[in-house]
Order: sequence, then C-alpha cells, then structure tokens
Amino acid sequence: MTRDHDGFDIEFRVRYGETDQMGVVYHAEYLVWCEMGRTEFIRAAGLPYAEMERRGTALAVADASLRYHAPARYDDRIRVRTTLRAVGSRAITFDYAIFNAETGVRLVTARTMLVAIDSQGRASVIPADIRLMLEGGQPPAR
Amino acid sequence: MTRDHDGFDIEFRVRYGETDQMGVVYHAEYLVWCEMGRTEFIRAAGLPYAEMERRGTALAVADASLRYHAPARYDDRIRVRTTLRAVGSRAITFDYAIFNAETGVRLVTARTMLVAIDSQGRASVIPADIRLMLEGGQPPAR
Amino acid sequence: MTRDHDGFDIEFRVRYGETDQMGVVYHAEYLVWCEMGRTEFIRAAGLPYAEMERRGTALAVADASLRYHAPARYDDRIRVRTTLRAVGSRAITFDYAIFNAETGVRLVTARTMLVAIDSQGRASVIPADIRLMLEGGQPPAR
Amino acid sequence: MTRDHDGFDIEFRVRYGETDQMGVVYHAEYLVWCEMGRTEFIRAAGLPYAEMERRGTALAVADASLRYHAPARYDDRIRVRTTLRAVGSRAITFDYAIFNAETGVRLVTARTMLVAIDSQGRASVIPADIRLMLEGGQPPAR
Repeated sequence: MTRDHDGFDIEFRVRYGETDQMGVVYHAEYLVWCEMGRTEFIRAAGLPYAEMERRGTALAVADASLRYHAPARYDDRIRVRTTLRAVGSRAITFDYAIFNAETGVRLVTARTMLVAIDSQGRASVIPADIRLMLEGGQPPAR
Repeated sequence: MTRDHDGFDIEFRVRYGETDQMGVVYHAEYLVWCEMGRTEFIRAAGLPYAEMERRGTALAVADASLRYHAPARYDDRIRVRTTLRAVGSRAITFDYAIFNAETGVRLVTARTMLVAIDSQGRASVIPADIRLMLEGGQPPAR
Repeated sequence: MTRDHDGFDIEFRVRYGETDQMGVVYHAEYLVWCEMGRTEFIRAAGLPYAEMERRGTALAVADASLRYHAPARYDDRIRVRTTLRAVGSRAITFDYAIFNAETGVRLVTARTMLVAIDSQGRASVIPADIRLMLEGGQPPAR
Repeated sequence: MTRDHDGFDIEFRVRYGETDQMGVVYHAEYLVWCEMGRTEFIRAAGLPYAEMERRGTALAVADASLRYHAPARYDDRIRVRTTLRAVGSRAITFDYAIFNAETGVRLVTARTMLVAIDSQGRASVIPADIRLMLEGGQPPAR
C-alpha cells in the first residue's frame, strides 16, 4: 500500500557537537534527525513510538539512503519534513526532506525502510491497528 | 575509472555508547565505522586523510546508502572491509562490508560517494597525484 | 565576580540514539544537553554564541563535573536549567540542573567552567562587552 | 578499600566525527573514551563487562568529573590510562589520564564513580567475587 502525505514537519537547531572540523554538520547526524522526524510523525498519527515499543512492536532500520545537497551549520534552524511513503505488512518506508528553515535551502533528501521486530528482535508483522493508524494518519500541519 | 580491490580491513570493538535501548548498535553509528574504514584505506594507500585535508583537499560525503542485515552488539569485535569502487576527477566511491569478526556474519553493506571540496567548501577537482595514489593503491591485506 | 541568576530553561525530548542498552540515556549525552542550555542562555543574554565565535572569541570547556541522580529515558521531556555562576576575565562558570519536565524529578546536576580562546586556540580575555552582557544578562523566563 | 594500580592502557585514533567546528575533539567524547578504558581494565581483570551485565550486575555512572588540559585532534593517536582508585560494596571509582600517545602530552584527567545496579535498575551490591577480582586484579601492562 502506498499513500501520499503532505508530510509532517519538525524544527530544531543544530547542536555544537553535531558539527565536525569541516565546520559543518557531520554526515551521520542526519540519520538521527530522520529518526526524530519519524518519531514525531508517528506520535502525530496517534501513538507515541515509545508506547508502540512497550506494546511489543519495535521498528528496526533495514535500509537507509541519503543524498547530501548542502551543509548544515552550527545553530542553523533545521526543518525535517517526514512523509510516509509506503506501509506493508512487515515494513514501513519513510521519506525525509531536510531544510535550512530560515533560507528554505534543501540540505538532505533521505529514505529509510523499517521492519517490524518483536521484543526478542525477530522479524514480525506490523499489528493491524498500528498499520491502520499509519495508513489513515493525517498528521497535522505543524 | 573503476577498479577492483580486494579491500582493506580494520577491526575494533563496539563501544557501550554506540548501543541503544533495543540492545543493539544504533543504525547511524555504521556511517562512523565506514568513515573509519576509508580513513585507514586512504592511509594505507599512501597519505593520511588528515594530511590530505591540510593540503587543501577535503572529501565530503555526497551520497550514502546502507543495508542492515544483522545487528551488532556491545563489545562485539567488528571488521569493516573497505573497497574502492570508483574514482573520478571529482568524486570517489567506496564500498563497505561490515562483519562480526568472530562469527563472520555480515552485518551491514554500505556505499558512500564523496566529492572533493577545497578549504572554502567549494566543489573542486581531486588532485592528480591523490587520484593516482588511490587508483594505483594496493592496500595491504591486514 | 559571582552573581545569582534564576536560571534559563530549555525543553526538548530524548532522542532514541541517546539511549544505550541499559534502556536509559547514555551518561555522556548530558554534557551535550548542558551545552544546549548555555547556548540558549547566551543567546537570551543578547548575543548568539555562533556570532561570538565569528567575532573571534570561542569558549572551550576546561572543567566539567556531573552528578547523576536518576536516569532519563527515550522520549522523556527534559528541562535543562542553566545558571551563570561566575564570570571572570578569562573564565565563565555555568551550573545546570536537568529535570524530567513532566515529573519534575531532578536527573543530573552539573557544572562546567569555560575559558576564552581566540581563533588560533590560544587562551584569551573575554571581551569587556561580552562580559558585561553576561553579567548583566537577565535571561527571560521561558 | 583503596588500592593503587599502575593503570591499564588502551590506544586508538581520534575519529573524524569526534571533532567539532573548533577543529578539536568535542568535550563530551572523552567520557566515551573513559568508558572504553574501564571496559578494557575490567576485561583484563578477568571478566568482560558485557558478561558482568549478563550475570545481572550493571555499573551506572553516578558521578563524573573531567579536567581538560589540551585538545585532541582528528587522527591523533590517543592513550587512555585507567586506574582503579577505590572499590566498595556498592561503588567503584576509576581515574583516567588521557594522553596524546605520540607526544606524551596529557590531554584530560578524569574520574568516574560507578554504582552497581541490578537488571531492574535498582541500586545493588557488587557481588563479592567481582569485587575480589577488581581488588586483586593486576591488569597487565600493555
């Protein structure tokens, strides 16, 4: 199943420790920001991810890709737009567009595919109610 | 230009802070390990990356992709095998295979494309001697 | 010179990658949060730290101490209260109290002493206007 | 109980992502290095910490202090010397001296106090055999 969403936005500032000696944000940090984006996407859809994990369904990243267009710098205001691309019985794919929130310049385009695992770390099925929530979720515009 | 290399290996142990509450290594950390792998690849080819940067050529990650096969855990002994996939006038592509060094299980397969930038952060050309070094580099088997 | 301030508060949520396999926030992350606290303290006092650095004065941590009272967990809402403890000609000391913002439980008490350095990394004097700003700063209640 | 040990050394190189835009290692990273030091100290004493945790005793940092003398830089070879300062029924204190391994310059002096917790995160007693191992441990010179 594939649906289109307009995306859900979060905003925050770049931390000092996220920069490296090139004077820009270290490239691995963007994966952390993607996770922050989908955490808030899922919360807005109706269930905090922390609660989903407590109920026995965790989502493990199985695949990730990032394209870096322009660097983020310390103290920049960042916007992460998270969009649900596809949700299946065992996997969910999110798209991310990361912007400088002040200039509107796109910094990174990313995608992650996550698979459901149970509390023992074994591949499992996404519970029907969670899938329904995500499919039907209309995340509020920020 | 594309060449085949047998790859260059590094080994180290998983740090506690690299794990997350799922009990496994947080997915963004593997990008850090890839960087460690290519740092040692480049050093073995003949020039420490730190020295390359001092001479005015930095390599910025422009594209990254990772496929996660199995989780790494705290204190696991990890092996990162770095292979030069392609080197052009402006970009270098490395492939990575990350293993549990004790069991031999493959944990992650990754690729990064890096572009040369000068000390002002502008796209630049990879100096001919560095390109030659990388192309002709015969990284020693570990 | 030592002054008392009521402190300046920031709030944010714990990121997944900040946890470790103990199921709580990794102890080194609190230093990052302290930095976020003082960044906003300094901004509220009248000058973003990023701008202070561009003008040639950086603040390097010379001394840090942390006492851990209770653990933070993923997705907890965190409050960092930053207080200026002392500002001298070459050093500034900040105190931090980190709370679970929902329960009010104190998680960590910390202090950092920072020294001024110039753009070459040499010890320097805190410019008089910046010192005045910090001394007289009345950070707004959140 | 307080004993004197000559200390146990580990060595490794600074990772790129550990630096910040000041061009030096971000101050929080040293806590990670301290943990690496005590992990290897404990392993050398006779029991990997991972195994200690599996047996039901975890060590949580209750107190940390760091003094920063000189900065570490990317690709520097680092030496962490870990010394057991004190071990009691519920707490263990380690001292750390972090050096540039090539120049011998001392970069950071640190101390952490850790308390034993059980698998539910409650304060507990350090098992007698583990305490004995640590007290009597003669970590090999590197």
